[in-house]
Amino acid sequence: MVKATAARDRVAVIGVGQTKFGEQWELSIRRITLTAATACLADSGVRGADIDGLYVSNTSTSSFMKQDHQAAMAADSGGLLPIPSTEVEAACASGGVAVRHAYMAIKSGEHKVIMVIGCEKMSDISEEGVADTLMSAADREWEGQMGATFPSLFGLITRRHMFHYGTTDEQLAAHPVKAHANAIENPYAQFRYKITLDQVLSSPMVADPLRVLNCAPISDGAAALILCRGDLVKQFRGEPIWIDAAMQASDTLAVHSRPHITVFRAVKAAAKDAYKKAAVTLKDIGLFEVHDSFSICEIIAAEDLGLVEKGQGGPALAQGMFNKDGQFPINPSGGLKAKGHPVGATGVAQIAEVVEQLRNTAGGRQIKGAEKGLALSMGGTGSTAVVHILSKD
Amino acid sequence: MVKATAARDRVAVIGVGQTKFGEQWELSIRRITLTAATACLADSGVRGADIDGLYVSNTSTSSFMKQDHQAAMAADSGGLLPIPSTEVEAACASGGVAVRHAYMAIKSGEHKVIMVIGCEKMSDISEEGVADTLMSAADREWEGQMGATFPSLFGLITRRHMFHYGTTDEQLAAHPVKAHANAIENPYAQFRYKITLDQVLSSPMVADPLRVLNCAPISDGAAALILCRGDLVKQFRGEPIWIDAAMQASDTLAVHSRPHITVFRAVKAAAKDAYKKAAVTLKDIGLFEVHDSFSICEIIAAEDLGLVEKGQGGPALAQGMFNKDGQFPINPSGGLKAKGHPVGATGVAQIAEVVEQLRNTAGGRQIKGAEKGLALSMGGTGSTAVVHILSKD
Repeated sequence: MVKATAARDRVAVIGVGQTKFGEQWELSIRRITLTAATACLADSGVRGADIDGLYVSNTSTSSFMKQDHQAAMAADSGGLLPIPSTEVEAACASGGVAVRHAYMAIKSGEHKVIMVIGCEKMSDISEEGVADTLMSAADREWEGQMGATFPSLFGLITRRHMFHYGTTDEQLAAHPVKAHANAIENPYAQFRYKITLDQVLSSPMVADPLRVLNCAPISDGAAALILCRGDLVKQFRGEPIWIDAAMQASDTLAVHSRPHITVFRAVKAAAKDAYKKAAVTLKDIGLFEVHDSFSICEIIAAEDLGLVEKGQGGPALAQGMFNKDGQFPINPSGGLKAKGHPVGATGVAQIAEVVEQLRNTAGGRQIKGAEKGLALSMGGTGSTAVVHILSKD
Repeated sequence: MVKATAARDRVAVIGVGQTKFGEQWELSIRRITLTAATACLADSGVRGADIDGLYVSNTSTSSFMKQDHQAAMAADSGGLLPIPSTEVEAACASGGVAVRHAYMAIKSGEHKVIMVIGCEKMSDISEEGVADTLMSAADREWEGQMGATFPSLFGLITRRHMFHYGTTDEQLAAHPVKAHANAIENPYAQFRYKITLDQVLSSPMVADPLRVLNCAPISDGAAALILCRGDLVKQFRGEPIWIDAAMQASDTLAVHSRPHITVFRAVKAAAKDAYKKAAVTLKDIGLFEVHDSFSICEIIAAEDLGLVEKGQGGPALAQGMFNKDGQFPINPSGGLKAKGHPVGATGVAQIAEVVEQLRNTAGGRQIKGAEKGLALSMGGTGSTAVVHILSKD
């Protein structure tokens, strides 16, 4: 079905570029953005003059540096004026939303070649400042002002998952152990060292039952992509990887408004739409990059994407089903937990990883024989979800 | 050229809804948003279940109320879950950017019926807080931290325009006099009373030569639109008004980076593209809703849209060329100055006004015989510009 679509009606990613994620004290937000953009141009063979649109994913610079209007700023500092430049905001899902909008802009016929940049600079801010700013993505009136934080909300969700399905501390601990093992092979990753189950289980408690090693770090970093209309990809050097579906859905901001807090309805809705649009079943998909800001997120993502039955995410994770050589490899990049989580960059970087995997250029973290890959970008406690399915051809 | 396009490839606005602009102490941001959305549904005959996408334009709730993720919140409070909901941020141009993205989303084939909501709640915040937050849309590092404010930057631009072109205080004062005269006929307007040239010229100085009556107010308000794929408009009650062009461009954030500070290059670029795309000349366009946050903005907009030669905006304004019965009617709604300027709502409301004018339902402010209309949404000191051209058929 998808194959029958004319090249002109398809959209490909033809370039990727990233900075290392982690503490980047020496780089400004402008510089970190430009670094990823420049790497992306080099990878794609696209010149600035070829680009007719820019999308920027950034969530916290408004609060951290009192700088909005990032989109025009990035177009200016990249020497891309006067092209249209647009910033989207959907908390941790901003990157996925930005890529989806670049995809639609090309499909609309209004654009041909678009750069998408995700960027965030978080290290310079006090941890308290970060936690409070991030809570802007939850319900300020009904959650934030009552003292809830994201670790505490995901702690509640984890506890409920344990209650319903028997998920254990050991299963939760398998997540960061796998994430760190994968990140060793990722030159862009923040934490390139192994950790053990015991280290996770003895690390300090953040929000019971989530320990510090169950939580993604605070990171600086940027990632960039070039998207191109299908019939034009041969003009450029970058190997095209095709976007077969880009689906988005929404849920309540507040966790208490949902019938079941262990189900991310937006993830289920976006995934269902994406499987249908791309005309694929799960066995076609060679790897999954999913939002794992807390260990419970990877478990629930596996369930809501349909990789396992509801409640079986914990045992499957602990048994290695999501390892690089497992049935459904999840986060070969190291994920948010070990690759790092510069919020605006994350969703863009997930797609960069899928592209590298499908191009067979992922080095030591390569999933062999992957023909299609899925990226799940999620914001808040699942209030926004975006699912992209990409394909080698 | 445009007429030959198949209905399926066109996009129409089939519903508009607004709240009154002004001080709305009794309404929350959720309520103000819902009020406009409900009015829009009633106008269009569209039900919530018909809507498959939502766009939200909001700029300051992140700072004012520490609430991001407005898009998911609006989808939830509007009962529209789980549809995709996206927030864009482009300072005062956010509304125009949101409408353009809804237009592209429909043209891409991924959506059929989309609601766009612009909303802002600014009265509850101290004036100093507002001024500082708004400066997030300029260059924080090179302008804001040096003490510049938007009135001071537009004051500099005005002074330079006077130096080059002989623009006078009296010409500047003609802007708010006209704006207030038009707003009297607008039930949504914040200031529905006449003012005189003498009142403007004796009002307190804000940033020389701009006086308080040369500046748009701080406002609360919301505006909503329903956009629909062309071949589906007959399913709904709302009279369709067609979007013939939706073009966007960017310029530097900082004023000092531009070759001429009295030219808004992004406006010129977006307008040029829009005239070409819609295949129109100026004489085809019956009214213009332009961004007039300060009096100089309307003067420069008239120049950069090509209504008059560069430098002739001041005399043309003073001579009545932009009056309701003039050659090129500008801001029959009262504009940002007199209708009000709830930042995120403004660009959406401009298009709502153009739609009402082309439907011939604008009451006492109706421009007779208008077949096409143009809306110019501008952010920062012209760092983002969006030009929409709409048509009766």
